[in-house]
Order: sequence, then structure tokens, then C-alpha cells
Amino acid sequence: MVERRTPIPVGEAVKKVMEFAIRGETEFISINDSHGRFLAEDIKATHDVPHFDRAPYDGFAVRAIDTKEASQTSPVEFEVIDQIGAGMVSSKTAGLFQAVRIMTGAQIPDGCDAVVMLELTKEEERDGKKFMSIKRPFNKGENVSFRGEDAKDGQVLLKKGTKINPGIQAVLATFGYAKVPVAKKPVIGLFATGTELLEVDEPLQPGKIRNSNAHMIAAQIDRAGAEVRYFGKLNDNFETCFEAVRKAINEVDLLITTGGVSVGDYDYLPAIYEKLGAEVLFNKVAMRPGSVTTVALFGRKLLFGLSGNPSACYVGFELFARPVIKTMLFSEKPHLRKEKAILEADFPKANPFTRFVRSTLTIRDGKLAVSPSGLDKSNIVTSLAEANSLTILPGGTRGFKSGSEVDVLMLEDETGSEWPW
Amino acid sequence: MVERRTPIPVGEAVKKVMEFAIRGETEFISINDSHGRFLAEDIKATHDVPHFDRAPYDGFAVRAIDTKEASQTSPVEFEVIDQIGAGMVSSKTAGLFQAVRIMTGAQIPDGCDAVVMLELTKEEERDGKKFMSIKRPFNKGENVSFRGEDAKDGQVLLKKGTKINPGIQAVLATFGYAKVPVAKKPVIGLFATGTELLEVDEPLQPGKIRNSNAHMIAAQIDRAGAEVRYFGKLNDNFETCFEAVRKAINEVDLLITTGGVSVGDYDYLPAIYEKLGAEVLFNKVAMRPGSVTTVALFGRKLLFGLSGNPSACYVGFELFARPVIKTMLFSEKPHLRKEKAILEADFPKANPFTRFVRSTLTIRDGKLAVSPSGLDKSNIVTSLAEANSLTILPGGTRGFKSGSEVDVLMLEDETGSEWPW
Repeated sequence: MVERRTPIPVGEAVKKVMEFAIRGETEFISINDSHGRFLAEDIKATHDVPHFDRAPYDGFAVRAIDTKEASQTSPVEFEVIDQIGAGMVSSKTAGLFQAVRIMTGAQIPDGCDAVVMLELTKEEERDGKKFMSIKRPFNKGENVSFRGEDAKDGQVLLKKGTKINPGIQAVLATFGYAKVPVAKKPVIGLFATGTELLEVDEPLQPGKIRNSNAHMIAAQIDRAGAEVRYFGKLNDNFETCFEAVRKAINEVDLLITTGGVSVGDYDYLPAIYEKLGAEVLFNKVAMRPGSVTTVALFGRKLLFGLSGNPSACYVGFELFARPVIKTMLFSEKPHLRKEKAILEADFPKANPFTRFVRSTLTIRDGKLAVSPSGLDKSNIVTSLAEANSLTILPGGTRGFKSGSEVDVLMLEDETGSEWPW
Repeated sequence: MVERRTPIPVGEAVKKVMEFAIRGETEFISINDSHGRFLAEDIKATHDVPHFDRAPYDGFAVRAIDTKEASQTSPVEFEVIDQIGAGMVSSKTAGLFQAVRIMTGAQIPDGCDAVVMLELTKEEERDGKKFMSIKRPFNKGENVSFRGEDAKDGQVLLKKGTKINPGIQAVLATFGYAKVPVAKKPVIGLFATGTELLEVDEPLQPGKIRNSNAHMIAAQIDRAGAEVRYFGKLNDNFETCFEAVRKAINEVDLLITTGGVSVGDYDYLPAIYEKLGAEVLFNKVAMRPGSVTTVALFGRKLLFGLSGNPSACYVGFELFARPVIKTMLFSEKPHLRKEKAILEADFPKANPFTRFVRSTLTIRDGKLAVSPSGLDKSNIVTSLAEANSLTILPGGTRGFKSGSEVDVLMLEDETGSEWPW
């Protein structure tokens, strides 16, 4: 007898899952290892930047007042009383018509309040003394980077949940964050199910296929910013499977299984959930692919029963598991980034369920355009490889025409959405 | 005396560097470690997919010819002679009005040529035998996934130079690539220079700043797909610096230094290049920031002398070092992806040099829009952190107005460009 399941709308399913999404933990790691991780705290400036008045150019530090009379026809001459590179501090104080040779980044010497660029000066030596002259006046503060003009001590510079990129590394280093507070990587358990599955290093056998889902999902977990713990393949013995799942749950933050959630005779997952006493949040979603996606709650841990079909498995992960992982990584926008794009293919067939079409998003003259990544049947196997997006085709009674505007979920983008629907 | 340098156009500078960009080496690594690496060879299908005729749905395999007379009013009954799950092969051959219960993914039994979905059947047991009946005819081949319809043995599925994403992991696993040919990560040497630099864990001192460039460039190297070998800070002694650089070159594929390439009195790099006998390809580029960017050739190795100014350093890396690294990673499009976007800010000031403005690229209603990421002065320090793109403002006598179309280089995108100008 076929079990009848009632499909719920995708948005409702996502909402049910997100009710149980929780923030992860914080750990402090070396700045050297932090590229690509996610900030677990807001990052503040720990001092003014610059933290002293500094020269943005190579040249001479002067007192602006002394330059007032300088002109093309009557240059003003300064005695050069010191010379300092970046990182040095002059011990001299400039007086009347005195200047200090100063390199980019060096601290403005006491008494000086403007910098004259090297190219605008003429240098001369007389009687063992150095002089330089200029042919135009400078204002007080001209060519000076003032203390605190880039950032003020205590100012929030970076928001928690942000992925650490090279520019953020520069900010962290500037403010002395030798140890960086990042979100601990959630540990995601993974089981594959399916008697038809061979491991990647096994030769083919009649009727069997290699286990591609485990490798795919492991990479999706990695891309989302979490750590995978792969427990291997569940075998055909119900009791062994049940024990393996029960044991695994204790070792992970959430558990994913691929396959075994349909209503076929070898689909054990529903029975495992039942025996565990896990609460099934839903076991049928009004979407294609992935309508059999099942999510259950055991204690405070989510169990994701993804389809064994690769495309359905892929989509199920991105829609339901990814936002939970991103929430653990402190993201405020845990869902896939959603944008509008022009559809470049016809989908004449109506479908009662919302479709998520693996697709290739391109930019044409500044505008987003999208087409399915597996256009002809011979490409089914590589359509996931080429997909950088999922095109959303809402369920209904009509198809979709090339040229119409559609919503697209971007798979390789860290921007995210607060809510995908 | 100030050395006079003649600036060359950015495009010419990039071209000069790319003349010495070479392909990297191949290594074979476990599929488990290959996510995010770059394919060093084209990947071919090692067998047909599916490699047997298979059932895409749960149901019954039948002989289409037997279903011809089935209708709502006169169902046709079949004897169920076997039951197989995915991964199993039936030992039976279906004869006249015989069917095999078959699960999704299982091999079509001999004699059968169509699959009837479970929902369309009625099952019954009589005299210890199983029967099922259907109410409509099926065509030969209906609901059968035929051998080779997804991919043919030998077909090229993935191009070398492609970054391995989750979908590619699935393809690699499907075809038994337990070991994956990937580009060996180029080893990029890195020195920082600057007497003003403190390490990230040192307390601030008057006139000094923390070394942010080394951490930033290390992350840029990582983002580009290479491995950084950080040799620390060059000190103020020319001979020591020279020896350190000379020694480091032997250990890396290319060498980057930050700072020390201006014409200031503490800028050693030009002298080091000279003493090495390295050929300076250029030491002044008509661009802002980064006009002092210097690239030299020593033997077959490129030495990148980036500016000590963080923004200039950042841009110099992305324009000149990144495409060399990407070429070593077998990319056919080693340069940053370039797209058109609508400018959302005024740049009234004309500049003779081409500008690369750190900017934030957004999508508004399916169209790219870009604005500088450090709009107000207080954000200079975070403008690199927020930048996901560089807006190109070509040098000339006029400024740029909000609403005009500009070229933008995308920093966080793997698509790339064949040539950026």
C-alpha cells in the first residue's frame, strides 16, 4: 500500500526548519588561519586610524604660515633640519622657515602643519646645510592625514556573520586582532543510503552506480562553511541502520542522510525517525525536484532526509540545510541570495509544484539572464556541475516563456537573503 | 634627486607580465580533498550514464505490447514475477502479461520495455501469487532511462582549469575519479618591507602602524587558489635584504614584496632588482592607485614589487599577480571578470591615469549597479573590506557622472575574463 503524504508549500517548509535554527559557538583562531571563516563578533577599531597625523606623500613637512608669500616669481626657501622615514619620529621641532624631509606614512613633526610634495620642491646644499624652496603657498592641514580621519577608536567596522575576505584581513591586522573571533564550524553528519551504491574506487557492477551524492553534499557542506563528518553508507539491516543513526546524532550538530525517504520498500528513514521518537516536521514538499525531502527534529537537533536523486538531494540541501548552517555561522542573511533575471528558455509545461531549475546565470550588458544548465538530455549528468543558480518557477497552471522575468537563487554568492520567498 | 619614471598604460603592463605566465604542474589528490581545487585535465565520462536501462520511478516493469488494450473500462492484469530494488538485477525474464515490481534506479529486467508508475496500478494477491492491473496503454520505452542517454563513454564533461564545485564532485564520483588531476598550488613568496611596520601582535608605537598588507596579500593569494610562503619583514640593511630575496626566489614560483618600490630614500627594491640582474619589465603604470607597481623578471620567475599603500597593493595584486597565478592553475580566463554596471556616484575630478576604484557591486532589479565602497573618508580603512569589485574609470580630461555605464572588475567571481581591457 502506498502511503499518502500531504505536500506543504516550500516557504512553509523552510519556515518550519528555521524555527529550530540556532546560533553557533565562538572560537578564537590565529589571523593566519581566518581567511574564509565567519566573524562571530562585531569588530571594532581598537585605536584611531591614523593614530598620529601623517604624511600621505613623500616631501617636506612645513609650517603653512611660512609658505604664504611663495610664488612662481619669488620662491620661499626653508632650511631642512631633519629627515625621517615612515615609522620614525623626528626629535626636532620646526621653527620659522624650517622644514623636515618626510617619507610617505611618517608622522608629521612637531611644529609642522602641511606637507609639500617632493615634485614641487627644489633642493640645494650650501655650507654643509640643506635647503629646499617652493613656489606656491600651502594651507594649514594641506596634505596631512589627520589622526582618526579613517577610523575612530571604538567604531564598529565589521559586522558579525561576515565572511573574512582579504580586505577584512587587512582591517583585523591593522587593529591588532592576532586572534580572531570566528564561528566554530558546525559539524554536519552525513550518511548515504542505497543498496545500489558503489564507492568511488569500486569497479562498476550490473545495476549499480557509484555514490555521487555523498561527495556532492560533502562539498556543499564545505561551501556553506561547515565541516563534514561522513559516516559511510547505511546498509540494508534496519536495526544496524537505526543504531548507526542514533549514535551519529550525538557526534554532530545536524545530520543529513541521502536517499531512503521515499515510500519505496527499501526506504528505512521514516521508520528510523519513528523508532527514534523524532518529530517529523514534514515529509513532502510542493517542489520539484526534492518533493520527498523530509526533516525531523530529535531533541534540539535537525535530521535532514534528502532525496537519493542527485538533483533533488542538491536542491534539498541548499534550501533547507544551508540556512541552518549559515545561522550557526552567525549570518543575518542565511538563505541563498535571490535576484531577478530574464529567462532565456521556454518552459511550456505547467507544473502544480514550484520548480527549482539548475541553471546558469550570466550577465549580458549589465543585466542578469538565466537558462537551464542541462539544456539537452545528454547533459543531465553535468547540469549540476555547470549550475551556479536555481531558477524558481512557481507552481501553477501555466508555463513560462523566454523573455519573462524570474527569480533566481545564486549558489556561489555569500551575500545571502534574509528570506528567500 | 628624484628619479623620473615613465608610466606605461595598464593594458600594456598586464601584457608584459602575461608574456611570462606559464602553466603549472599537475598532481593527483583524493576526491575528498578536491573541492575548491582546479582541474588540471579535461574530465571524460568513463562509461555510459546510465550504464544500463533503468527505471526513473517506483512501479512495475512491463512489456509495452501487453498494455495495448488497457482502458478505464477494461483493465489489463499482469502477474508479478519478481521484485527488485535499486542495485539489484532480476534473474527472471518477463513473458506474456508478466511484470516485475521495480524501485527507482533499478535495472529494467530482460523482456520489459516500459515502466508503469506505482500510483497508476492496482495490486492484488490470489492463491499466493501477486497481480497488478493497469487502466491505460504504455508505449515502448515509456518511463525508461536508456543506457547512455545522460552521458556517453568518452565524452568530455569538464574542462581543465575549472574550479571544482559540488556538482563537479558528483561527476567525478560518478565516473570513479577516486584520484583527481588538479593543478598543483603555486607557491607564492611574500616579503613585507617598511621600517614603520609592527607585527599584528605588537602594541602600537609612535609613528608606526601594524603590517596589514602581508595578511591582506596572503588572503588574496589564498583566494586566487595558491599557497603563500611568508618570509617576514625585510629589515633596513640592504645586504641582508638582498640575500633574503635572492634565497627566497629559489623556494617559490613567484615572489611578491609589498612596499619599497617608490623613489623614497628607504625604497630598496629597485636596487635589489639591479644587483640581482633582474630585468625590470616596468616600474611605473598609468593607474591609480598603484602607479609605482614594479614587475621584474629573474630567470623565468616574476618578481612583483607592489606598493606599500594598502589599496595600491591590493589592486596591484589583482591586476598583475592574480592572472599569473590563475594561468598556473590552468585557467583560460585568468583575469578578473569584467562586466558593465551603472555608476551610482559622481567622480567630478578628471584624472590623467586610469582609476581602479574599490567598489560595491549590487544588483537592482536584475541590473548591475556600482558605487565606491569607501564613500566617506571615515571608511577608508574598511573600504577594502567592503569592496567586491573595482570600478574602472579610464584616464582622461573629464570626470564621470552618476548614471553612466562603467566597466567593473569582479573580485569574488571565478568566471574570469580572457583579457581585462
